[in-house]
Amino acid sequence: MNRTEDRPVTTVDAHAHAWSPHTARARFRDGLAGPTAGVAAGHTQANLIAVPADWAYDMLLFCQRNPKPCPVLDVTDAGSPTTVLAEGADLRTDLPRYRVWQDGELVDEPTDARAYWREDLVSFLLGCSFTFEWALARAGVPIRHVEQGRNVPMYVTSRACREAGRLRGPMVVSMRPVPPERLGAAIRESSLLPAVHGGPVHCGDPAALGIEDLGRPDFGDPVTLADGDIPVFWACGVTPQAAVMASRPPFAITHAPGQMFLTDARDEQYRLVGVD
Amino acid sequence: MNRTEDRPVTTVDAHAHAWSPHTARARFRDGLAGPTAGVAAGHTQANLIAVPADWAYDMLLFCQRNPKPCPVLDVTDAGSPTTVLAEGADLRTDLPRYRVWQDGELVDEPTDARAYWREDLVSFLLGCSFTFEWALARAGVPIRHVEQGRNVPMYVTSRACREAGRLRGPMVVSMRPVPPERLGAAIRESSLLPAVHGGPVHCGDPAALGIEDLGRPDFGDPVTLADGDIPVFWACGVTPQAAVMASRPPFAITHAPGQMFLTDARDEQYRLVGVD
Repeated sequence: MNRTEDRPVTTVDAHAHAWSPHTARARFRDGLAGPTAGVAAGHTQANLIAVPADWAYDMLLFCQRNPKPCPVLDVTDAGSPTTVLAEGADLRTDLPRYRVWQDGELVDEPTDARAYWREDLVSFLLGCSFTFEWALARAGVPIRHVEQGRNVPMYVTSRACREAGRLRGPMVVSMRPVPPERLGAAIRESSLLPAVHGGPVHCGDPAALGIEDLGRPDFGDPVTLADGDIPVFWACGVTPQAAVMASRPPFAITHAPGQMFLTDARDEQYRLVGVD
Repeated sequence: MNRTEDRPVTTVDAHAHAWSPHTARARFRDGLAGPTAGVAAGHTQANLIAVPADWAYDMLLFCQRNPKPCPVLDVTDAGSPTTVLAEGADLRTDLPRYRVWQDGELVDEPTDARAYWREDLVSFLLGCSFTFEWALARAGVPIRHVEQGRNVPMYVTSRACREAGRLRGPMVVSMRPVPPERLGAAIRESSLLPAVHGGPVHCGDPAALGIEDLGRPDFGDPVTLADGDIPVFWACGVTPQAAVMASRPPFAITHAPGQMFLTDARDEQYRLVGVD
């Protein structure tokens, strides 16, 4: 089987926001790679983490015990590369880029995971904060990292996740600067989307989360705060990758950061109904 | 070990609403039994289902795939009778009454489960609709079954839960009649409590759920609708017991219907923040 590193790899084009999820998955399957922010706008993107069946209970329990960083949208049957969230999708090929982990070490970042796939893998699809940014924007919250053309900054915190079996690790958070007059809206709108990290875990002093320097994120890019902006921290879907690094399961496949799985679900459907 | 069926068993007294959860658990541990509606008011009550570790992944996945009937509040480590939801509690003794299941058949209803406990049991504590009734009442929704001094009526529906491994079964719902002018409030307030079944699964025609006669519930008591009331159906925590009956795991222990586990958590803390 050819490894897709050998295929031509391009970046996502300017029309990608208007693609259907089906089209996006087909392009990624054909070898396209790159960040998925804004792709197939309005459709729900998901974090992927696939672990051997022997580790699936620990992972599912880790997610249950840490629902803010690890909100589960779907879990596949062992060995199945399909999900109810995307008709006709193949989780082995339809993400832009993967990360392959052995004993907690990153060993490859292919655009096709078939060469690594195992029949005993159980795939977890977790909610992604891309889904709540539209709701923040609609409520008048400026999205600073988008304004500044950067990735959202992410930080490993001093806050430990609740352990589950062999899995442990720190909570990872994303940070968005919010003007004080929009803080209520930001909290309300994200709280109404508990399937995609829900409300913030902390507002204000980064030191309370053990973050020493906002200008030096562990993942993503630094973002400039406007005068008066309050840093607001949400639990982040990179948390399971931090758990893989800390807990060293023998094998795992995840998405590459920012290069998510496009589902057929619409962001709106994860917003709690009837609360306007 | 003495089976607690031999102990004196009384009913919950009129002051039970003012008990602390700790006091309630101590009374139940001492042999008190009876429905827990209104006990330790304001504190979260939970459904219990304990299954052998070999079945725990299927149960956790069943809950993940059916979050409205099976909202998980905590999962214990195998063999542990303790939970983070209640300091000093013992899940083997602190519920008023249990049900013991073998191969899907109900074999006993003791007030103490120690004679049946196994070292490989994993306990699931699931949210209970008692937690959202206070929120409905506060929003001016009349609680008809309470007005009428009855248990809430529950129905086995024609809607199948999504299967998980060896577990399958129908969704069970509870029904509360709601005046049309309070329907919005009932939907909003319960939607804001996704950890305890969330918003309704259906409003109106019972036939849409395969319910032939509202006057003949499968569990609980029939309740009289006032003129104009719309029957509103919420997913119900009895659903896992229906899954046990349908799927026949070799062994399970659950609470007896209406006789729940009293946690130290407060109902308020499960309401999504910042959305007033």
